[in-house]
Amino acid sequence: MPNVSQKGLSMPESPIRKLVPFAEAAKKKGATVIHLNIGQPDIKTPQVALDAVRNNTIEVLEYSRTEGSEGYREKLVAYYAKNDIHVTAGDIIVTTGGSEALSFVMGSIADSGDEIIIPEPFYANYNGFATAANVKVVPVVSHIDNNFALPPIEAFERLITPRTKAILICNPGNPTGYLYSKEEIKKLAHIVKEHDIFLVADEVYREFTYDDRKHYSVLQEEGLGNHAIIVDSVSKRYSMCGARIGCLVTQNKEVIKTALKFAQARLSPPTYAQLASEAALDTPQSYFDDVKTEYVARRDLLLQELEKIEGVKIGRPQGAFYCIAELPIEDADDFAQWLLEDFRVNNETVMVAPAAGFYATPGLGKNQIRIAYVLDQERLKRAVNILKEALKSYIG
Amino acid sequence: MPNVSQKGLSMPESPIRKLVPFAEAAKKKGATVIHLNIGQPDIKTPQVALDAVRNNTIEVLEYSRTEGSEGYREKLVAYYAKNDIHVTAGDIIVTTGGSEALSFVMGSIADSGDEIIIPEPFYANYNGFATAANVKVVPVVSHIDNNFALPPIEAFERLITPRTKAILICNPGNPTGYLYSKEEIKKLAHIVKEHDIFLVADEVYREFTYDDRKHYSVLQEEGLGNHAIIVDSVSKRYSMCGARIGCLVTQNKEVIKTALKFAQARLSPPTYAQLASEAALDTPQSYFDDVKTEYVARRDLLLQELEKIEGVKIGRPQGAFYCIAELPIEDADDFAQWLLEDFRVNNETVMVAPAAGFYATPGLGKNQIRIAYVLDQERLKRAVNILKEALKSYIG
Ligand SMILES: Cc1ncc(COP(=O)(O)O)c(C=O)c1O
Ligand SMILES: Cc1ncc(COP(=O)(O)O)c(C=O)c1O
Repeated sequence: MPNVSQKGLSMPESPIRKLVPFAEAAKKKGATVIHLNIGQPDIKTPQVALDAVRNNTIEVLEYSRTEGSEGYREKLVAYYAKNDIHVTAGDIIVTTGGSEALSFVMGSIADSGDEIIIPEPFYANYNGFATAANVKVVPVVSHIDNNFALPPIEAFERLITPRTKAILICNPGNPTGYLYSKEEIKKLAHIVKEHDIFLVADEVYREFTYDDRKHYSVLQEEGLGNHAIIVDSVSKRYSMCGARIGCLVTQNKEVIKTALKFAQARLSPPTYAQLASEAALDTPQSYFDDVKTEYVARRDLLLQELEKIEGVKIGRPQGAFYCIAELPIEDADDFAQWLLEDFRVNNETVMVAPAAGFYATPGLGKNQIRIAYVLDQERLKRAVNILKEALKSYIG
Repeated sequence: MPNVSQKGLSMPESPIRKLVPFAEAAKKKGATVIHLNIGQPDIKTPQVALDAVRNNTIEVLEYSRTEGSEGYREKLVAYYAKNDIHVTAGDIIVTTGGSEALSFVMGSIADSGDEIIIPEPFYANYNGFATAANVKVVPVVSHIDNNFALPPIEAFERLITPRTKAILICNPGNPTGYLYSKEEIKKLAHIVKEHDIFLVADEVYREFTYDDRKHYSVLQEEGLGNHAIIVDSVSKRYSMCGARIGCLVTQNKEVIKTALKFAQARLSPPTYAQLASEAALDTPQSYFDDVKTEYVARRDLLLQELEKIEGVKIGRPQGAFYCIAELPIEDADDFAQWLLEDFRVNNETVMVAPAAGFYATPGLGKNQIRIAYVLDQERLKRAVNILKEALKSYIG
């Protein structure tokens, strides 16, 4: 029997994959599992987007343009302008989710053995895209004690080698919920210009910022044009994860030209989903206001309830809809599995994402979990209560 | 300004990309361009598929399962069984087009510098996926004089090295239209078993077989289970290229497990498109009969008209909807550009795909073009007439 590739063997599995069979077993036995582990919002997709697909008049479902339909990219230009990001349609390549934008970026800027520096904990799939592209992830650790803020710039400086091609940030952060300040972005801008490398910003949670804080994009930073690359997505913005539409945005013409070749090979992004995404740009502001109000309420509830649990330490998220919690345990993997296998309150349990999978440095995050607050407040409250009872029982 | 990657620089461009600006210029000047160059069928998408999307009741457009929805994969099992291909839902990973299946396969079976043998001329984007995965394409030449049949098995034998991971075939072939016989598949089965490598078959044109010839899948070949991998797609089968749904099928559990890790990193295939693809499986047989009748008529018309042109040599396609024609010229690139720039019949011209881009061996195919017969017979006839007049004028 022929062997699979070494690369394939070293492709990481999702941090929660191991737990899925235990969750399924729990459900089979009749228990209810509350999912704190996934970033799939329960929010309704904007009606304009749903309607655009229901009312479509397509008769021959053709390939769209490789770089995305002209109409959609033109409307994206206006969306970015409203966010004080000034680009042209030619600076945008529509992709199949932010996921595909990430892999196009890695392929376009890095060769086998090249390095990309990423503050950890980070979105676990960066590991997958890096492995697929033979790129080495070099982590720089950020800490729960200061809310996962940007590590000191000297920490990046120390890690830069001739093979460093980029610094990759997620802003606001998954899994940290941290929102980088303008000053932090300026520090990063300075260092990438000095070392002539790229600054890739995954801004898929751009709109999810709380406490009157404003998102500052790498493309708002003057003079960063040729260094800055944005990865973006409609998945969370409009609660349309299943569309699979994202984009790559950069003023660097060479990067566009190169990424376009990767895009050409796969022909085009999905057509129906582009209809939905284009229409979603007409979502009324009230939709976002409501969504933000809801997420703030959920976050506040989550933090308030978590703070009541003895020995639990939390970062205060100012964006996205994730939060890292440090628990008074040693091995969150074991705890998460035990929750699914052995612990119930009124026949309910919770599924959490052990945080170690979001760190590249071995051993880090072992006593942390990531919580996604994408469920209604009533269930969220019940879930935290289960966690609290579980910790008592697990430790005791 | 930071540099793009070497890999990015060496990513091939699509063989027709260079011609696109000339086609656009021709249209701007008011000329009509008949496209013989693209595999985008003009056939209507099955009504059941269009309706499934128009009547969808999705309110929260969620990620689907990474490996594709349970319902769709179960129905695919029945589709394959009807085609005498016996697999389970666990043998199938739904992908974003056959394109994504191709890149998952390359990543799953080959490491940097590994080799995949492919009969040429071949679907040009294999080059792109191979480059992205740092895999080396090793071509084995097939000839127009015997219709692009399978090269002698010794030719493969000579090319196999310790780094050879697979033989990749396209059956029926794009750009050749050649349909491999059962005997040819058996020969390939023998050699891949002997050398313990994979046989990857791109069978996206499975249904498009003519002259009462039947398609023989690598998964129908007994004893090939762990060696055989199918790449499949709804794009051409149901004229729904814009859906972006395909799949990877193999009974090799290690390959499934590995490809699934690549799939997990990109989360899921598009949701609306899966609805359409699942519904498309209920397309009545009469649809395919009509489509086949139409393609046979187009092919016959195309061959008949091409044969009337002096000095033109053609393969007789028995499948798909492409045909390679050898022209009495030296440089099809130049000819194709000249057609767009300088030649008109009643203010109409044609765009063809120079065939050199479908060969990996430098210098091959320079006097050949690929014609896609995906347009109505009336225009097809006009297009060949333009080619005929153009050749007279170009040579003269
Ligand atoms: C930080 C971050 N980036 C990118 C993605 C990819 O999302 P998609 O491919 O759905 O756009 C996600 C999804 O969870 C994410 O959290
Ligand atoms: C031979 C072959 N394989 C794969 C593909 C990829 O198609 P898709 O990604 O639309 O499924 C094509 C498209 O033209 C093709 O001709």
